[in-house]
Parts: sequence; structure tokens; C-alpha cells
Amino acid sequence: MALLVRTSPDRAAAWHTALHQAAPDLDVRLWPECGDPAEITALLTWKAPPDLVQRFPNLRVVFSEGAGVDQFLSLDLPEPVSLVRIVDPALTGMMVEYGTWATLALHRQVPAYRRQQSAHEWTRLPHTLARDRRVGVLGLGVLGRALLERLQLFAFDCAGWSRGAHALDGVKCFAGAEELQPFLARTDILICLLPLTEETRDILCSAHFNAMPRGAALVNCGRGGHLVERDLLDALASGQLSHAILDVTAREPLPADHPFWDHPRVTITPHVASDTTPASAAAQVIENLQRLQRGEVPVGLVDRRRGY
Amino acid sequence: MALLVRTSPDRAAAWHTALHQAAPDLDVRLWPECGDPAEITALLTWKAPPDLVQRFPNLRVVFSEGAGVDQFLSLDLPEPVSLVRIVDPALTGMMVEYGTWATLALHRQVPAYRRQQSAHEWTRLPHTLARDRRVGVLGLGVLGRALLERLQLFAFDCAGWSRGAHALDGVKCFAGAEELQPFLARTDILICLLPLTEETRDILCSAHFNAMPRGAALVNCGRGGHLVERDLLDALASGQLSHAILDVTAREPLPADHPFWDHPRVTITPHVASDTTPASAAAQVIENLQRLQRGEVPVGLVDRRRGY
Repeated sequence: MALLVRTSPDRAAAWHTALHQAAPDLDVRLWPECGDPAEITALLTWKAPPDLVQRFPNLRVVFSEGAGVDQFLSLDLPEPVSLVRIVDPALTGMMVEYGTWATLALHRQVPAYRRQQSAHEWTRLPHTLARDRRVGVLGLGVLGRALLERLQLFAFDCAGWSRGAHALDGVKCFAGAEELQPFLARTDILICLLPLTEETRDILCSAHFNAMPRGAALVNCGRGGHLVERDLLDALASGQLSHAILDVTAREPLPADHPFWDHPRVTITPHVASDTTPASAAAQVIENLQRLQRGEVPVGLVDRRRGY
Repeated sequence: MALLVRTSPDRAAAWHTALHQAAPDLDVRLWPECGDPAEITALLTWKAPPDLVQRFPNLRVVFSEGAGVDQFLSLDLPEPVSLVRIVDPALTGMMVEYGTWATLALHRQVPAYRRQQSAHEWTRLPHTLARDRRVGVLGLGVLGRALLERLQLFAFDCAGWSRGAHALDGVKCFAGAEELQPFLARTDILICLLPLTEETRDILCSAHFNAMPRGAALVNCGRGGHLVERDLLDALASGQLSHAILDVTAREPLPADHPFWDHPRVTITPHVASDTTPASAAAQVIENLQRLQRGEVPVGLVDRRRGY
């Protein structure tokens, strides 16, 4: 058995080093140097080649290089091939950093002070205490739960929504389609950390923006496919939403002529909120290879019918 | 005895409500309606009138409306008058919010991504893990310690400096003039939360910027008097410092023609990092009045020889 790593050259080198340190005997190969394709039993990648199954007839597991797996769902991997996401403590930590930064920036009116700075204007704006600021996280997986835990330390009024029911200490939990509207109605700062599935595609749309309090703000750390970009521009134009911080967009890189770039109420970062760190994530890949060899369920196994 | 509140009209009303709720029998008067000046034994204010002692002959305590007290030190209050700072949990919480926001913004290269956005450029910059990011806080009072405690949760490599020795779990503590240089030499993101005294005035100067790693960043939440503004402009021009987030400036409001306003590597907020919330702070004022009546030392008593 051999693990094939297919990523960018600089990341491939980091993976090779980290995997070799964690398991010196593991046969690690770096794309495009595959050797005998029949020996490849595991693939670690962010985007898989479409002829994956034909090319590697003995493939047993695909590791997504990140937390998301939507890019693999159209591949129709046969059942014996496990699809596994990375649950990397460093990746979670980065998302908590980004989500906390974005929430605090919106809470403390940094975009408004930025506009005042451009106008050379020194005016203190009315302050809202954290306990009166209603923060809501869409998605209560590993990332959403970790972010809510950190935000609670700032005393924000925290809520979360997900497809299935959850119970989290100090967090108002909403579940399923019928509880989405009441969740949105109490949310001043909305952070999307959902997986992209057919159910969550276009969830950030006019109908849902209109369910929020006027002047609410949006942070999208999920996928570009969650957001109807035209609807966001309309909501910002009408004042229904006051600002959006977007780490992901429908087309990446964001086209140079896209209206988001120059919009005074949009902050763009180039899909950097969170990233897998090979040095930290290699241990999980190795552990999962061992689990699969022992016939156990790997950590982070994706339910392909659910899509996450 | 009576407590005189001298502040802006909107804040005066909030103080009156909060103090009345906490102690319905307390005689609270709102400037300029002082009544008989001989009955005023306590004053709550941010800036005191210079003829304070002559005007209120029976004054026993001055409460600073904020965490800082430097504006009172030139008044030469006679010894029987206690000078007390507000130690308000809401004020501390706001400073932790601001300091965490500023640290995360600098750590995650938000100013650089902001410049990229202006140029319609989508480029991921190399990422530094929090554990490899050396954060240093100048000042280990209530605010500095609370901020460091929060920043440690993000796994930053944390250090603190103060005049006297401190021991804080998980924080590298430096003390006194001779340890300032080694503290600065290991600090990538420097946050100033010092009191303003003759010893700390102009502490943020060329000699100290040059002791830091090239490309380090500065956050000033202390006082404008801590910073030599010309030296900051030089350090940003040479690249010795990469960015500064300033909540305080030498002249406030910052003059409209000041070079900070349009500087691409300076972020200005109008002295909003932290603010006393009467609803939260009234309890401490009442408690301190009771302590003084019982002959006890009030919480937050200022040592006027030290200056904080």
C-alpha cells in the first residue's frame, strides 16, 4: 500500500516531511510520481482527478486536504472507497482566529471607523455591550462549536443553527428548516460555517437576509456557493445588511471586475480563514490509515448521502 | 455628604440612573447644579476643574471616570483627598475585545489583505501559526493581565513587561528598564496598556522600535503621550514597523491635517477601545464610598507618587 499526495509543490514537500516524521515506514508518493498505480491505496488531495477510480483500481480512501468535501461529491466514488475530511487542531484554531477577528471587527464597528478615517473624522459611535450583541453561527460541526466556545468568553449572546439538533452549554440551539427563521430573527452578526450541500446551497439569500434585524452583518467562511451574491449587493444597498466579510466567493480568485472589490461595505480575504497545516494534520492521516487497516471507522469519515 | 458627577450630559444621566439604582439614599448631584459646595465630599469626573480644592473645601475623594488618572496628577490634590480609578468589569471587557481584535487583525495580516482588496488582488500570503507569533503587552495592570489571559487561549507566544516584577502563568514576564530591550527584541506585536507617567512618556520611540524584530507591529491603547508620533512615521517609512493601530493620539481629536489619517499603514480609532459603563461601574463607586466611610482603603486607589 502507498499514500499518494497530490497538492501544490510547496505543500507536497511539507506533507512529505510531516508524514515521514510521523510514520517513517509509510510509502508516500508525490504526484505526478505515482509509481505503479495499482499500489496506490490512499490519496490525499484538495481536488481529485476525475478519472480517479479508473486510474487507481485499489484505492480505499481519499483524504480531503481541508475541512470541506463538496468538491468530491460529484466524483461518484464507489462504496468501498472511504472519503475522510481533515479534522486538524491547527485548522480549527485558524478558523476560531478568523471568526473571532471578524465578529469583534463587526461588533466594534471597525468598518464604520475605517470609513471615518478616510474622511478624517474623529467621532465616537454609540457602543453596544457584548452581552447585548446577538451572534449566530450557521453550522455546528467541529469549527462552529469551537468558534462559539471562544465567542462565549466575550459574553456575546450566542446562538447556533444546524440541520440536526444540538445541545451546547450557553448557546441557544436551533435546528432544521422550520427553526431557521427564528434563528435569523435574533442574529445581529451571522457567521456561516456550513458544509456545502444541495440543502445549504444559496442559503445566504434575500429571503433569509430579510428575516434578520435591519443593519445585521454577515461573515461567510463556508463556501462561495452558500451566498447569492446579487442578493447580498441588494441587501447592502437597501441597508438591510450593514457589512459583509467574505473569505469565499462563487468564483475564486474573485474576478478583477467584480463589484465586491470596491464595495465600501464588503471586506474580502482570499480564502485564507483556515488551512490545513501538514505538521499538525499528518498524525490524523496516519491514525486513520491504521484504523482502516484494522477495519475501524476513520475519524472524520464523510456520510456521502448527507454530503458532509 | 454628596457625590457630584461632572461629565457629558448623556453620561451624567446614565450615571445618575445607575447610582440611584445601586444606592437610592445617596445624595447625587449633576454638574453644574452643585448646591452648597461645602456638602460635596466626592467627585466623579474625567477632567477636574483646576480650582477643585478651593471650590469644594470638604472634598475627600475624586473618582476618575476611566482607567487612566494622568489628567489628575497635575492638580496637586492635598493628601486627605483620595484619587481612585474605575476598575469596571465592562471597561476591562471592552479593552480585551479591542486588544484581541487588534492582535488578530495584525496576526492574520488584515491590513495587507485590505491593501490587496484595493488593488483587486487575490493572493494568499504565507501564514504564521499563533504559537510562532510573539505578542507582548506593555503594562501588567488589570487590563494587561486580562488581555494576556484571553490571548493565551489563541496559543500566542505571550510576554508582558511592567515596571515591577510579576509572575503570570504561561506569560514570559519582564520587569524594569533593564529588561525592556530583551522584551522588545522578542515581540512581533506590541500592545501598549501602560499608565502615562513621567517614566512611560515617549516610551514608544525610535530607540525602542529599533529594538524590535523588523516588520513588527504596534497597538497603542494607552495614551497619546506614550508615542513619539514622528518616530512612528519614520519606523513605518523604513519598514522597521509594518503597521500601527492607534486608539489614542497626542492631540485628540486628531487634527484633520495629521499624516496618520491617510497613512496606509496606520489604523485610527477615536479613543473608543474602552469606556466606563455607568450601569456596570456604579457598584464600585458605591462600595468605595462605603469603604472610605469605614476608614478602609478604596479599590483602585492611586499611588500619586508612582502616578498610577
